Amino acid sequence: MRMFSFTVAATDGAARLGRLETAHGPVETPVFMPVGTAGTVKAMTPEAVASTGARIVLGNTYHLMLRPTAERVARLGGLHRFMGWDGPILTDSGGYQVMSLAKLRTLTEEGVTFQSHIDGSRHLLTPERSMEIQDLLDATITMAFDECPPFPAEKADVAQSMRRSMRWAERSRRAFRERPGYALFGINQGGIHPDLREESAAALKEIGFEGYAVGGLAVGEPFEAMLAALDGTVPHLPADRPRYLMGVGRPEDIVAAVARGIDMFDCVMPTRSGRTGKAFTRRGDLNMRNARHRDDPRPLDEACGCPACRRFSRAYLHHLIHAEEILGAMLLTWHNIQVYQDLMADLRTAIGAGRLSACLDDFHATRALGDLEPV
Amino acid sequence: MRMFSFTVAATDGAARLGRLETAHGPVETPVFMPVGTAGTVKAMTPEAVASTGARIVLGNTYHLMLRPTAERVARLGGLHRFMGWDGPILTDSGGYQVMSLAKLRTLTEEGVTFQSHIDGSRHLLTPERSMEIQDLLDATITMAFDECPPFPAEKADVAQSMRRSMRWAERSRRAFRERPGYALFGINQGGIHPDLREESAAALKEIGFEGYAVGGLAVGEPFEAMLAALDGTVPHLPADRPRYLMGVGRPEDIVAAVARGIDMFDCVMPTRSGRTGKAFTRRGDLNMRNARHRDDPRPLDEACGCPACRRFSRAYLHHLIHAEEILGAMLLTWHNIQVYQDLMADLRTAIGAGRLSACLDDFHATRALGDLEPV
Ligand SMILES: [Zn+2]
Ligand SMILES: [Zn+2]
Repeated sequence: MRMFSFTVAATDGAARLGRLETAHGPVETPVFMPVGTAGTVKAMTPEAVASTGARIVLGNTYHLMLRPTAERVARLGGLHRFMGWDGPILTDSGGYQVMSLAKLRTLTEEGVTFQSHIDGSRHLLTPERSMEIQDLLDATITMAFDECPPFPAEKADVAQSMRRSMRWAERSRRAFRERPGYALFGINQGGIHPDLREESAAALKEIGFEGYAVGGLAVGEPFEAMLAALDGTVPHLPADRPRYLMGVGRPEDIVAAVARGIDMFDCVMPTRSGRTGKAFTRRGDLNMRNARHRDDPRPLDEACGCPACRRFSRAYLHHLIHAEEILGAMLLTWHNIQVYQDLMADLRTAIGAGRLSACLDDFHATRALGDLEPV
Repeated sequence: MRMFSFTVAATDGAARLGRLETAHGPVETPVFMPVGTAGTVKAMTPEAVASTGARIVLGNTYHLMLRPTAERVARLGGLHRFMGWDGPILTDSGGYQVMSLAKLRTLTEEGVTFQSHIDGSRHLLTPERSMEIQDLLDATITMAFDECPPFPAEKADVAQSMRRSMRWAERSRRAFRERPGYALFGINQGGIHPDLREESAAALKEIGFEGYAVGGLAVGEPFEAMLAALDGTVPHLPADRPRYLMGVGRPEDIVAAVARGIDMFDCVMPTRSGRTGKAFTRRGDLNMRNARHRDDPRPLDEACGCPACRRFSRAYLHHLIHAEEILGAMLLTWHNIQVYQDLMADLRTAIGAGRLSACLDDFHATRALGDLEPV
């Protein structure tokens, strides 16, 4: 059986071109992972997801434990078989979403008790239970159970929360069931405080993980504060392990984070935006509801090879969105994921060729052009 | 340029195996046409529709004239290019939907004035305007403008309505712009009254059409009444032209109508049901919301080659529907259209082999089995 590994093939400044080997196949990094919250990347078939070049998707412990339940997914052969995705799957630990979605949460050293937002049933999520759930789901990459404090928060609260997350990280490591090709990632916390981030990194390294995530960012802090937090964190993470910036983000966030040495990303933005008429393009973000697209026979994005751009006009996409047609959500989601995957492929190529700086200049210059003139 | 034609290759009792040649390619009959109301077969890409074997789809004049408007579709190259469907498209005349969907309708000999259900704007739909709209849409098959009386209705009212529809049919014929490979179909009316159906058929034949539809059925009358109306109508329609039973129907309706000599069908049932968790199978209709499917690892329908059945379990489909995931609507719609297309292919094969009767017996016997035992 294949072992889990991460190798860096090339670097360009702090940026790395890498490769994950997993029980469910390889992944080139930097990588963007489409979010498949409830066992589906919303509005996409698995074939459509794979057609964009995506090789790894995310699943959400919180959603899946409530419905259809981890035990049911296990009985049905695990999440890969359940959702028809043969590639690697990373599952979050449930820690973030239990705090943002569940009702009547009570946080103790043991874990979090909460009420389901679906049916009001009561549940206890602990590091041990989170590991068990992710094991039942058969996650290729399991995330340690952590707490993500709100932003803004007092530094003392952030420190207390981070230290509890580190204790939970240790319990996660002990509870995690090792299997060849599978991995457990620790999650760095500490908000926007460099000393706490450094303390957290040291604690995680001491425990030892197959990968290291940066959590608690993209929760409302300014862009510059996020970059500063990355600058204060990444140098303290092991260079020979993948680094994952959780929940990020916009294309401009991703390119900035890649330049700072981040290897993995996930975000609901391309999928959620696709269901609300928003399209990402190389020349910026478009609201396809806008009347300027109503008579436009041109594709959404000339440079894009997705079905929305190859087969349909902006006018048609505009029409579908106004008519609230499911196909509108399907096509815009497909396009947005394609744009994200193309961006990651461009970044990988640039890092491999040692010309990331030129690639970033081109990225920003193309966005600065803004959208095509209306017809 | 290809001429529009219909040839009957084989008959089996009243049933016919036929072939339409059109400007947009051939269609084997009996055929089921998926409904693409607003320029999309809901929750399906055109490639997905074609993958089921569907070769012709329906568009709705009423919806498209209001949004995005027929003029806009024409400026964008016609409905085929707009919706990315290269095959034949049949458009209804707007007569049925203006009576069922629009507000503040006023019916006169001239036509129908009404208010849009979308924005309240006022419109006049006449035979001439209906022909113009369907021409702007570039419909391969245009339907004559008619009125569909409600059911139940007094016979005198049905007769009056039918005779107006016949006058409108003549105006439609005069206003229709002839082009090679394109066709205009007349619509037989007369409710459940054989004498009115015969009178209507005679009036339509006198005008002359490339095909003949049976309208005003499947509007709430009992199954047996629909079959009786067909028996009183089909013998009066020209044998050398295609016969289209509008808005029908369930699989059991379709097989009964094919046996009575109907060649073409359309219905929202497979698509609409797919968005509400209902699946058609060879062994009857299933409600995939039902808890009996919750732990079922088996495919929806062993005999079906659609992606929903090839790649996913009943348990997964059940989960998607409960989680209100768009993929649930996508997969069930795909499956339902596949089941309808497979049924039509089976019927065509049976008619060609002169064993339609055995095919119908098998159809009913398989349905009578009911669903698989729960796991
Ligand atoms: Zn695209
Ligand atoms: Zn199927």
